[in-house]
Order: sequence, then C-alpha cells, then structure tokens
Amino acid sequence: MSSVIGKNIRLSVFGESHGEAIGCVIDGLPSGVKLDMDKIYFDMKRRAPGRDKTSTPRLEKDIPHILSGVLDGVTTGAPLAMIIENTNTKSGDYKNVMTVPRPSHSDYPAYVKFGGNNDVRGGGHFSARLTAPIVFAGAVAKQILAEKGITVGAHIKQIGEVYDSSFDMNGVNKETLNDVSSKLFSVLDDSAEDKMREEIEKYRLDLNSVGGVIECAAVGLPVGLGGNMFDTVEGRLSQMLFGIPAVKGVQFGLGFGFASSNAKDVNDGYEIKDGAVSLKSNNNGGVLGGMTSGAPLVLSVAIKPTPSIAAAQDSVDLEKMENATLEIKGRHDPCILPRAVPVVESAVALGILDIISE
Amino acid sequence: MSSVIGKNIRLSVFGESHGEAIGCVIDGLPSGVKLDMDKIYFDMKRRAPGRDKTSTPRLEKDIPHILSGVLDGVTTGAPLAMIIENTNTKSGDYKNVMTVPRPSHSDYPAYVKFGGNNDVRGGGHFSARLTAPIVFAGAVAKQILAEKGITVGAHIKQIGEVYDSSFDMNGVNKETLNDVSSKLFSVLDDSAEDKMREEIEKYRLDLNSVGGVIECAAVGLPVGLGGNMFDTVEGRLSQMLFGIPAVKGVQFGLGFGFASSNAKDVNDGYEIKDGAVSLKSNNNGGVLGGMTSGAPLVLSVAIKPTPSIAAAQDSVDLEKMENATLEIKGRHDPCILPRAVPVVESAVALGILDIISE
Amino acid sequence: MSSVIGKNIRLSVFGESHGEAIGCVIDGLPSGVKLDMDKIYFDMKRRAPGRDKTSTPRLEKDIPHILSGVLDGVTTGAPLAMIIENTNTKSGDYKNVMTVPRPSHSDYPAYVKFGGNNDVRGGGHFSARLTAPIVFAGAVAKQILAEKGITVGAHIKQIGEVYDSSFDMNGVNKETLNDVSSKLFSVLDDSAEDKMREEIEKYRLDLNSVGGVIECAAVGLPVGLGGNMFDTVEGRLSQMLFGIPAVKGVQFGLGFGFASSNAKDVNDGYEIKDGAVSLKSNNNGGVLGGMTSGAPLVLSVAIKPTPSIAAAQDSVDLEKMENATLEIKGRHDPCILPRAVPVVESAVALGILDIISE
Amino acid sequence: MSSVIGKNIRLSVFGESHGEAIGCVIDGLPSGVKLDMDKIYFDMKRRAPGRDKTSTPRLEKDIPHILSGVLDGVTTGAPLAMIIENTNTKSGDYKNVMTVPRPSHSDYPAYVKFGGNNDVRGGGHFSARLTAPIVFAGAVAKQILAEKGITVGAHIKQIGEVYDSSFDMNGVNKETLNDVSSKLFSVLDDSAEDKMREEIEKYRLDLNSVGGVIECAAVGLPVGLGGNMFDTVEGRLSQMLFGIPAVKGVQFGLGFGFASSNAKDVNDGYEIKDGAVSLKSNNNGGVLGGMTSGAPLVLSVAIKPTPSIAAAQDSVDLEKMENATLEIKGRHDPCILPRAVPVVESAVALGILDIISE
Repeated sequence: MSSVIGKNIRLSVFGESHGEAIGCVIDGLPSGVKLDMDKIYFDMKRRAPGRDKTSTPRLEKDIPHILSGVLDGVTTGAPLAMIIENTNTKSGDYKNVMTVPRPSHSDYPAYVKFGGNNDVRGGGHFSARLTAPIVFAGAVAKQILAEKGITVGAHIKQIGEVYDSSFDMNGVNKETLNDVSSKLFSVLDDSAEDKMREEIEKYRLDLNSVGGVIECAAVGLPVGLGGNMFDTVEGRLSQMLFGIPAVKGVQFGLGFGFASSNAKDVNDGYEIKDGAVSLKSNNNGGVLGGMTSGAPLVLSVAIKPTPSIAAAQDSVDLEKMENATLEIKGRHDPCILPRAVPVVESAVALGILDIISE
Repeated sequence: MSSVIGKNIRLSVFGESHGEAIGCVIDGLPSGVKLDMDKIYFDMKRRAPGRDKTSTPRLEKDIPHILSGVLDGVTTGAPLAMIIENTNTKSGDYKNVMTVPRPSHSDYPAYVKFGGNNDVRGGGHFSARLTAPIVFAGAVAKQILAEKGITVGAHIKQIGEVYDSSFDMNGVNKETLNDVSSKLFSVLDDSAEDKMREEIEKYRLDLNSVGGVIECAAVGLPVGLGGNMFDTVEGRLSQMLFGIPAVKGVQFGLGFGFASSNAKDVNDGYEIKDGAVSLKSNNNGGVLGGMTSGAPLVLSVAIKPTPSIAAAQDSVDLEKMENATLEIKGRHDPCILPRAVPVVESAVALGILDIISE
Repeated sequence: MSSVIGKNIRLSVFGESHGEAIGCVIDGLPSGVKLDMDKIYFDMKRRAPGRDKTSTPRLEKDIPHILSGVLDGVTTGAPLAMIIENTNTKSGDYKNVMTVPRPSHSDYPAYVKFGGNNDVRGGGHFSARLTAPIVFAGAVAKQILAEKGITVGAHIKQIGEVYDSSFDMNGVNKETLNDVSSKLFSVLDDSAEDKMREEIEKYRLDLNSVGGVIECAAVGLPVGLGGNMFDTVEGRLSQMLFGIPAVKGVQFGLGFGFASSNAKDVNDGYEIKDGAVSLKSNNNGGVLGGMTSGAPLVLSVAIKPTPSIAAAQDSVDLEKMENATLEIKGRHDPCILPRAVPVVESAVALGILDIISE
Repeated sequence: MSSVIGKNIRLSVFGESHGEAIGCVIDGLPSGVKLDMDKIYFDMKRRAPGRDKTSTPRLEKDIPHILSGVLDGVTTGAPLAMIIENTNTKSGDYKNVMTVPRPSHSDYPAYVKFGGNNDVRGGGHFSARLTAPIVFAGAVAKQILAEKGITVGAHIKQIGEVYDSSFDMNGVNKETLNDVSSKLFSVLDDSAEDKMREEIEKYRLDLNSVGGVIECAAVGLPVGLGGNMFDTVEGRLSQMLFGIPAVKGVQFGLGFGFASSNAKDVNDGYEIKDGAVSLKSNNNGGVLGGMTSGAPLVLSVAIKPTPSIAAAQDSVDLEKMENATLEIKGRHDPCILPRAVPVVESAVALGILDIISE
C-alpha cells in the first residue's frame, strides 16, 4: 500500500478518519510562490461535509494548519507539511463494522491485508475524509499552475438520470472553468442544480445513494506534455484519479463514446487559425499519442453510489464466519458528487503539475 | 517521455516502426521459470497483422529473438532482452506525413515535442507496432502468473454497433478465459464474430475505421493486492492500459454504468459459501478500496477508431503553415480491436505481475 | 530537491529548524508491529543536543508526537506520521547568515537554488535538526528488523587523531551491537571515550571543530539481499547515508584500504563450518556482487568537522557582492560524531528495511 | 535485483557474459543530439580488454550496434537501444565455478538468490563485461553534457603503493579533464604510468592482483544542482558508482581525509573574484548541502583487487557441502583500474545527466 505519489512533485498523504490528525507533505514544490489561503479554504469548503441535505450532517472543521515549507505566506522550496486535526468523531457508531464488513467498501480486503490491525474507525486511512489533504494539495497546485497560465475546473455532469450540459470540448476556456470552480454546487447549467438536488433527496429519503459522472477540463497547457507508452497524460492522471474513493472509470474526450464511432466522424483535423495550428475538433480530449495536443484537456470520471447506506444489507461476520445483516449507523452522503468535484480538480491539477515539472 | 514502467518488474520498450529492430528488456523477473515459447508465439500471432481483411495486409514476421535472461529455456533472473528485427518496411509511403500531421495521431504533438527530430517513418516509436514487445512481455508474465494460479483473458465486447456477450462478472473462470485467449478472433459468443467481421468490412470498404470495447478479466488473485490512495489496482493497471495506442477509457466493474445506479441495486453483499467469505455480486469488478476483493477482476477499455484512414482529411502543412488535405497511403487496419485483445491481456498481466511481486 | 526516499518503505521528512514543527511520514510499514516507545525515545536522546560539552548547549525537547498509523501502540499499516514541535529557537542569532553564506554550509547553493526564498533561520530545512525525524524512523525500523532477527549498531571509530577499536568484521555479533547502541557515547573500548572527549574539548576551546569516522554493522541478514548493477546494497545504503549532513565518504569492508591490498591477502575464502557455508574472512564487509554474503554488513562513513565555528571566517556578502568576514554566533557542536551515531544506525536500518521489504 | 537506474534518464542494462549479446536501453534522452561515434568507440576501446599485459588477453570486439533512437546520426528522443554481440567466449574455462564459488565474487550470494538458475558462464550478468554498455551510455551522456559546457574526466590516482598526482580540487579545468580522458592509460603525471605498469606486472607474475583508487572530476556544473536529504549529488552518484563491480568506497573532496581535519583548516571560504562569488578552496569536492557549489566536482572511488586470480584459493563445494580448493583458469586482469577509468567517468556522466535533466 502506498499513499505517496508523484515523480517530480511528491505527495504523501497520511491520517485515519478518527485518529488525531490527517494531513500531507508536498515535496518538490517550487520556491517563491505566494499562496492565497482564501482560495485554499474555499476549495476545502467545497469538499467539506455538512453544507446541506446532499451530504452527511457530520461537521468537520477542516482547517489546514501549515507546519513547514511556507514562510511569510511564500513557499520556501522545502517540503510543505500540513495537518488537519480531527474533531467531532463518534467512534461508537462504527463499532460493528470491525468484523462485519460493509458491502462495496474496503473493509473486507483491508481486514485480510492488514490482519485486523488497520484502524477501522470511520474507515481509518480508507476514509473519504483523506481527500481533504488532496484538496489542500490540489489548491496549492492550482495556484502554481495559474502562474503558468493553466486553469483547471470541473463540474457534475450526471447524477443518476439527471444531466448537466457538457463542456464544449474544443471551446472550453478559463472563464468557464473559473466559474464552475467558484461554485459550491458545481454545474455549468444552473438549472441542473435543482434537478440534481431533487434526485439526491429522492435517494436520501429511500435510505439509498446514487452515482454519477464528474467532468474536468484544463486549459492553457503547452503542446507536447507527457509522452507515449508509459508516460501518457492519460495514464499519469488516471493513477491520481483512481486514488479518489468511489472512482470506477476514467475516460478522455469521447472515451467510451469512441466505441460506436468511426474515424470519419471523430478524427480531429487541423487548420491554420490566426497564424497558428489549431484543431478543428477535440474528440480526443486534448491528448494525442499520450501528449497534450494544444486543445483543452477534457476527461470524465465515473463515481459509484456511496456504499454506506442506512438500509439493511447482506454481509458476513468475519470472526464467527456466518452470514450477518448489517445496518450501518453513522452519517452518510446520499450522493458524494457535489463534494467530489474539488477532489477531481485537485487530482488533475496535481497530476498536471507533476508532468509539467520535468 | 518514458517507455519504461513498473516498480518491481520493470519493462523497457524500444524501437521505431521502420528502424532496424524493436524489442524490450524485462528486469526483475524471477529465476527458474521454464518458458513455453509456443505460447509466446501464439500470442504474438494474435497481435500480428495480415491475418485477414480485418487488418492491414502488411506482413510482419514478428519473430522474437531472446538475447539474454534465458538459459536452456529457463529464466536466469537477469534482465530478459528480446528483439524483433524489422523487415518489409516501405518508408516511402509515409513521406508526406513529416510536415502534414495525420489527424488524431501523435504526429503534431510529437513534432512540437521533438523539434522534428523524431523518426516519423511508420509512426516511429509511436507506432502501434511497438505493442509487439508488450505482447511478448505479457506472454512471459502470463506464464509466471499461471504458476501462481492466476489466469488472464480478454475478448472483444463491442465493435461499432455489434456486441459480444459480457463476462459474468462474478462467475467468470479460468476455463472461459483460456478459451477466449486461445482464439485468433477473441469473442465469447462465436456468432458475434461474423457480425463483427461484417461491421469491420463495412467500414473498410468505406475507407473508414471503427472503434470498440475490449473486456478483460483475471481470476485466481489473492485478496488484498494493491492498496488505497495511490497504489490502487485500478490506477496501476490504467497506467499500463493507457500505454496502448488508441485506448481512451478504462473502467472497472460497472464503470460508467455506476453513474445511473443506486447502492441498493449495485452494492456487493457478502455471504459464507463453502465455509469461505464470498461476494454475492461483483459490480465493483473485483476491486474494493483499490484492493482485490477475491472476486474476478473485470475491466474494460474503450478503443477509438484507427485514425489512419485512406479517405482525404483536413490537416495543415507545418512548414508552410497553411491548410492541407491529407491522403494517407500505406496499409491500415479498419478496426484494431481483433489485434488489440492480446495487447490488453498483456498490459493487465504485466500490471498484476508487478503488483504481486512486492 | 527531494526529502522523500525508499522504494518499498517510503520516508518523507519535513520541517525547518526554526519553523513550527519538523517530522516525517513513513509509508508502507507492515501492520501489527508493537512499538516500544522507550527505545525510540532513547535513540532520540542519543541524538539530542545539550547533553554535555561535546555538543551545543541548545536545549531541544525532541518529543515525537505520533499523529497516525499507530493504534493502541501497534502499527496499523497506514502511513505513520510524526511531528516534533520546535521550541527554544533563537532566530536572531542567525540573522546575518541570510546574505553572508557560512563556509562549507549549504547556504550559498541554497541561496542560488531557491532564489533567496528558502528559510535560512537555523539552517531551515538544511539544518542537522532534520536528522531527528530520521532517528525516529530508524528506531521504528530497528524494531521491525529485530523481529526478523536483524540487529544494527554503530560506534565512533575515530575523532581527529583518536581511535576506538574497530568491529571484528567477521565476528561482530548482536550482543556487541546492542551494547554500543545502548550507550550515549558509543564506543567499543570505553577508554576511548575519555580521550575522544579531550580531543573534542581541545577544538571547542579553540573555537574550532573536528571530524571523524563512524563505523556501523548489521547482523542477521539473509544471504542474497540486494543485487548487482543498480540495486547494490552499497548503493542503496549510500543514498541514505549521504542524506546525513556532513557525511562525505562511505566505504564497505576495507573500503579505501583495498587500494593498497592484493587479492591473495584480502580475498574472502569459504569453508564449511557446522555444516553450513561460512566465510573465512570478511574484508568485503558482508557484500559481494552488491548482495549480502551472509557475513556481517560492515561499513564506515567519513564525517567532516562541523562547519559552524565561532572563529571569524572569510565569506562574501551576496547582496553587496563584496568580501565579508563572518562570525557565526549561536550554539554549535565542536564535534558532531557522538550525536551522529544513532543517525547512521537509522539510515542503515531504514535502508535494510527497504531492501528486505521486497 | 535491478539493472535499471535513473529518474529522468533511465538506463536499462542487459546481457550475460557468455550469452548471445549484451546491451542497454537509454530512455528519456533529448532529441536532436548529433552523436560522434568515434568518441564513443574510443571510450569503449579504453575499457576493452586485451590491450596489453595490464589486462586479460581475451579479445573482445566491443562493437556497439545501435538498434533504435538514432536516425541519420541524430537522437530522435525515442529510447536508444544498443547491443554488442558476444564472440570469443570459452565457456569451458569456467565450468567448475558452478558449484565452487570464487572467493570475493558474486557467485555464492547469486547461487543462493537465484537457486542455481543464474547463468554462471563468465560471471553471467554479474560479469564486469556488463560495464561495456555503461561506457557506451556514458559516452553518449558525455556528448550531451558537452553541449551544456560540462566536462567529465578521470584518472588512476593510486595502484597498490604507486601514486599519480591528484586533481587540483579548486583548479581542475576542462583541458585537464579532456587530456586524461584522451589517454588509454589515464594518469595526470605521465611518469606515473611506467611505475604503475611495473606494479601491476609484479602482481601478474605472482598470479595475484592489486587494487587502487580512481579520481574523477566534472567542471562546468551550474550552482544548486541536486538537493539535501535524499536528493544529494553524492548519494545519486554513489548509487551509480557502486554499480561498478569492485567499487567498495566513494568519497567526495577530502572524503575520509576529513576525519582527522578541523574546520579552521578545511572550511571552504568565499571571495569575490572577477565580480562573481568564488570559493577560496574546494575541500568539499564541489558539493555543499548535497548541492553543487560551483567549484569542480571531485570524487574518488576505491577499487578492490580483481578477485579472480590464478593462485589456488580456499572455497567450498556447494553441492557436496565440503571444503574445496579452487584454481581459476581463464583470463584475468591483474589490475582492473586502467580499464575502469572510463567506467567511472561514465557513471558520473550518467548521474550528472540524470540530475541536470529535471
């Protein structure tokens, strides 16, 4: 198991849901970058629970506390360490999970892997709470990328049967991305928000949960980042993106839509525009041969329904080795997507920063 | 750019389509493994072009020549180096590609990245021909995995609008996997083959090409391989899979199908079966919290239509900086999927071998 | 710059001398290891300053505070994060260092590398204080190694012109290693301590400092760890050892003594002893062809005199670009070796743990 | 075991002494570098055996054959693969080595590690012959470094009791380095050559061998390369250097000479010279805080006497598990240093290229 990633910018995430603190160390950051803490706090607020009925009523004061690597608000070039103290944890709620694994959670393989020694309270190190340090690191990365003219933004594309508009893959720009990432409920078409909230509420009242798709884009990338074979932009970003709990699919451009397509319809031709090479379409989502093509990077990730639901579920007792029925108490999200948007943005921003730093 | 991958089993792939030879070095293999060369040759034949009308009529004698790491047919534990000499290359066919990039190919970003120094003949190092060494390495990996009771197999799930059956995600077994991987045209339902061949022929006659989906599974994996965060089975396999040209999406289990699902329907419950913990369903494709769950690993990848088509396409002349029309001569696949099946199997086998070797 | 190391056990060290806290994250530890905190505290005490006249009178309460990865005193398998809060820092003492670099310190290259943004107070991230987290991590590693029957210990072999006895390279055992590592002033021959203290005092009174050699050994290692080429035990341990400030040389077995030797005298023959293969001598320090040979691992490192001395030194003013005389105020060690012994043990223990974990 | 190294420039070495071919793949090279093959051949000639009585009479035609990554003499940016075919191998000579390990060689730990499956003919993958691909790769690296104004050169500093002059650590320049690396017997003071040849001859006639020290320097390095902690120039170069068979120690600047030194004598002060910051001395060998200081990089490595000698030695029979006397037939070097000089240069050049490529 490894909670460290990155070749040039190395991110090490630590902590357990009900432990003393969670946090991260970001190693390899450039020196001299002035950090806007308000922007960091805002992204952490986007991820934080307890905002409304779409998320768990659990209150977390996700206040990032920087221990090193920043002096007078400016990065020093030394590792940036940050911790968030855990408060308001109710370990009792999770007690029976220790031997009765929650369906579709990490509980069972973790039990086998760690021989029962892993901290199971609140999911331990497997808790989605560990995405808070990722969002912190991503918010730092976004500020460094902004200095290089690169902007990242994401929105909820689908929740259950409700859809937002999609990014114009060849036309999405900085303004659109900044707009969606300035929202607490990130959608392109504001009318989608109400419908999505209704969809979520429907599942919440049914003690159930629902999945969806988040679409993310980045603009301002130079041509030729990444490489083919084992250094593709797609592969490197995927390793970050699959690190987000509940992500079960990653696609670039048309992605699985390519399956029923033909080359005449979807090949991205070129033209000279304003004296420069320009793509006539961007079905490849800004990546050709594993390298950035100059068109916007556009990807989407599939998110499964939050597996923790209040309804009774079939499980087993790992000690007694007998069937068991599990009723998960505690506080759960009927839909994780609204909170997952800044996490996806962060994974993409960190991945791009790592790629661009070589 | 990096053509090296792997933490414990390091694969380095080299070569250019019209250069002297292509090949690979596999570093970190266990010693004492007896290699069945016929099995290796068969997988390479599955990938080789020129078999029938679904693929390019180009003839390649993909004869792998082992230079080191094997003595008397048994691995020594030293790096296994292999080369395939290039023959039957007609460089003249690709001449105009040097300044007029093929749409949806790597040509344009590669031109920018390498300042025009990259070998463009036949796609150079970006050629799909470079998947031959991957298939060789994957065939070696599959034999090592077989000794550990692990079997990998893949089939064409979709070409254009034609579908094969899907793997039974919770029931797929060794026999099924060995069966599909023993076919030159890998489908579960043999009746799908004819329909798929017709679909491909339709696009071929139209000087066009078509995309599809390949589904891959692995059985016999122990519980708890991989890890959460940045060591997920999904992320590690994706980095391999996106190294295959034309792959634009990777999903595990239901993948993007999770988007319109709810937890009650798709959560994978547990039960005691024959005295052991068993999953009642496997919508997660054998991975929970980034770790293997004990159920079969099931994933699928989206493949875009081969971008090289004979029809005229819009491009630009990178030297004259003016619009240009491109007609790609040469030999092309109207559909790459039949040949891509063993490549997907190989990427998955190599990824699993790397994960299991720690 | 990277403060992360390790392939299987990844150590990330952070903090700046006069910042809020220093610490580390250890990623990849096995679960289920019961930690003896007293042993950890003891090693940290060995490294801590202020014990006597051989070290700086600065008082540091190096109390490691574990944030994650340990539950009820047992490792969980999740990343182990630890912080040490900085107290008793007198930043004023170092003020003029910002533009006048201390000779033989990192100041000048760091100034160029970080454009003046690095935290220079107390050496910032370059401070030898950052060895405290290494000792913490090493003490954890030593406990994990002890469970596998592996023991690591080191002693001061030389300070200036004063020598301790050397390890018997083919006979050093667990008892000897535990004995030296249970001392605050680690020497084999206790009579060497007084002479070494006199030597140090001589330099202290002269506002000067003195270098030396630390010898380290490990026993209980299985045969065949490591590998040749780029996976040698020597190379992997060296990358850790050169991470210790002031280390300027690393040698194994006879090391530089091999230069004036001949094969007849120094080749390590074999014999059967008690039914097992045994080495008749161990001039190679337990490593042959980059792999452990079964004999004790014996290495030594050269430590330069602490560059911070109270005497006036020639330097330059980097802003005014003119010559300057520097008088370093603050608190300094006339000899770092007594405190460096547990740091060397830790680097070796962490390196061995990383090698043995694959 | 790993024969792959490098973060940005990844070198993968393969082959076995008596196998079909040895070679390497260099991944990550810049495109557009025109290679001077004569310079490469010359360095390989410096390493090749059979030149005179100082080395084995074995004849190797080390002709590097480039398979990929170079087009019309210019690097393409794709992996550069090279092979050297093995000829003139007399496997019979080594037959009894299979069960009777050569003292001070890798034989015994390799036997244990690979369970007897490793190729033992001529040392297999552990043979010093595998330094030929390193010299090839190093010669490529030196040409890339030369374009950046960086020059690397090495000489024999000591053989047995015979010494060459040492580099002037603060004054060594490009001319001196080019001069020593243009010699087949690299010494600074030509009069040292005859004395060293006599020393070697003395050991050869005695069926013995002798060790020594090689000193290497690099000039033209910018200030601030590398980093402290685990990214030190010292540590990164050491991992390369210990990959050379027979290297048992690495030191920078005064190295082990620091042990009996004091800060007043050896601290490297600064002065303004010609309007720039300059070091008044360079006892640290061009590295401060793990980073390049702007002064020449100066290091030296200890080389043990070639363990293969014709005289009878004590060993054991690993199958019969009884004592045995070994007489190594075959062709051996009474002193490896003359041939090892370009290997040390290559390791340093490759290490610097890797460091400078980020």
